[in-house]
Amino acid sequence: MSQTIFEKIIHRELPSEIVYEDDEIICIKDKYPQAPVHLLLITKKTIPSIHDLDKKDAHLVGKIFLKAKELAEEFGIGENYRILTNRGIEAGQTVFHLHFHLLGGKKLGGKGG
Amino acid sequence: MSQTIFEKIIHRELPSEIVYEDDEIICIKDKYPQAPVHLLLITKKTIPSIHDLDKKDAHLVGKIFLKAKELAEEFGIGENYRILTNRGIEAGQTVFHLHFHLLGGKKLGGKGG
Repeated sequence: MSQTIFEKIIHRELPSEIVYEDDEIICIKDKYPQAPVHLLLITKKTIPSIHDLDKKDAHLVGKIFLKAKELAEEFGIGENYRILTNRGIEAGQTVFHLHFHLLGGKKLGGKGG
Repeated sequence: MSQTIFEKIIHRELPSEIVYEDDEIICIKDKYPQAPVHLLLITKKTIPSIHDLDKKDAHLVGKIFLKAKELAEEFGIGENYRILTNRGIEAGQTVFHLHFHLLGGKKLGGKGG
């Protein structure tokens, strides 16, 4: 099976602006930002989407949200931001490796739908 | 301090369409849906936003995402959906009690920004 773009970034086979990394997660700047601050928080474990999350990996989600709020502060958007994950092409998922978008720095439309 | 709308729903002081409930979380249909399926997954504990989440409550986030994927199946949107939380008015937060939107049943625009 071919690697996802995020696996290539994790393995340093593709360049990326990494803003945080530990043994379980990696956070990068989105290459095609949709807001002044647009970061991606990615599980190092290759899980295709949130729909493939199982109970033993659920702690990774909590960890990602705790890290996201730290990064929001670090990037100056602590007062207003959105965190989301997309499952499936119709929802806007383009890389099939679990990741969460952290968006801020502008007024965000609607509820995200 | 006055109760949030969600506290009133939890305490059965306001009506709502409850689709799931346990001792830690409650899931309801959004009263003003932005998609054919639009559910809210809410912590029973009153946490104003994701930015107020601390480490001891982080397991609630993992639990909510596991429940969201079950509800996505139950509501027939398992293949394509978005889960998000908004922090702050500029991000679209209107109720200051931690909740996650589960949206599906239509093509969702952009990345949610």
